[in-house]
Amino acid sequence: MRTARPREFVNLTEKVREVVRASGVVDGLVLVSSMHITSAVFVNDNESGLLHDIEAWAERLAPRGDYEHHRTGESNGDAHLKNLLLGHQVVLPVSRGDLDLGPWEQIFYGEFDGQRPKRVIVKVVGDGGSRLELGVDGGVPGPSRPR
Amino acid sequence: MRTARPREFVNLTEKVREVVRASGVVDGLVLVSSMHITSAVFVNDNESGLLHDIEAWAERLAPRGDYEHHRTGESNGDAHLKNLLLGHQVVLPVSRGDLDLGPWEQIFYGEFDGQRPKRVIVKVVGDGGSRLELGVDGGVPGPSRPR
Amino acid sequence: MRTARPREFVNLTEKVREVVRASGVVDGLVLVSSMHITSAVFVNDNESGLLHDIEAWAERLAPRGDYEHHRTGESNGDAHLKNLLLGHQVVLPVSRGDLDLGPWEQIFYGEFDGQRPKRVIVKVVGDGGSRLELGVDGGVPGPSRPR
Repeated sequence: MRTARPREFVNLTEKVREVVRASGVVDGLVLVSSMHITSAVFVNDNESGLLHDIEAWAERLAPRGDYEHHRTGESNGDAHLKNLLLGHQVVLPVSRGDLDLGPWEQIFYGEFDGQRPKRVIVKVVGDGGSRLELGVDGGVPGPSRPR
Repeated sequence: MRTARPREFVNLTEKVREVVRASGVVDGLVLVSSMHITSAVFVNDNESGLLHDIEAWAERLAPRGDYEHHRTGESNGDAHLKNLLLGHQVVLPVSRGDLDLGPWEQIFYGEFDGQRPKRVIVKVVGDGGSRLELGVDGGVPGPSRPR
Repeated sequence: MRTARPREFVNLTEKVREVVRASGVVDGLVLVSSMHITSAVFVNDNESGLLHDIEAWAERLAPRGDYEHHRTGESNGDAHLKNLLLGHQVVLPVSRGDLDLGPWEQIFYGEFDGQRPKRVIVKVVGDGGSRLELGVDGGVPGPSRPR
């Protein structure tokens, strides 16, 4: 993933749903986690006004500015703090082979230091299709791991 | 769940413990997650003064006020931010068939836009009782999913 | 764990990696969670300036001060809030039998009320080595649980 703008929210819900369905897990958990510490993964409502509110709120509580981290040559100290404020990851339930969300829950990637390649990991664990093979071939039926 | 007041903290620990014991999972994880984005799930101490401190702190950092989200007719923008501040969910360890908490860890539901029906999902995954059936009947032994 | 100072960040990454490798889980999740509510577990970059920034930021948003909780004789109200701000726990992916982190992701324990014994729980779930024993002896092959 490479966002066009330095700061951008990307709705991951449909991609995560596809991964869950493809995994064959019927009942379990799915982890959606940033692999970077200058972006966040969080659950909230897909309403554009609210997403602006979230961005403004994160800027108010973890503003751009001068940080000790910048002595290393970096300029993204605020992005590290926004990751901590909004959250590095979410874990969501998988039921009946599908993502089991409430009516308004959507999964967002929040980029705060973008315009370069970033990865989100989606990992499904639990009981189900692939697990039924376990006793048969003794193989390792680990769920798929798209990034 | 339907809280009597618009803002209220509910201790979920005993309910989660019952679900863990009923699941038959001996060793694993339990996810406790809000299915709404205007309420939080978090771990802290069950001390009434502290719970007041947490509520006051959340109000200070994510105050009621005017948000872009309110253009949709909603008035709960602050509740969405309080969800992000306190956390949408927790994952806790299951050991020896029981919830494996430290001495002061308690699980709370934090409602910030209540007086209407809300749901919390509790999902147990791991090895144990139900899993022992796996090779026998080939069924899908998924843990129970009370809400 | 017992930190030398009241406030201290401890890098847990190598310890967690050892637990993951010893668990025999090939593909799954690992939970790293504080068993206390006055310390945090979070993912960020292992850069000393940034760690100072994080500590200063947490102090700014959840300062030491007078809290209702202190009526119980405690003086650590701010530590409870810092736990909520930085997070109680993280869940990380396990792939090919190892911790599956991005290039800069490191796991930290953040102590805010130290100089006394504290525990962190590391719990691995998923498919893999130990799981292959399941059908053989009917035992409970739960992953190891160092604290």
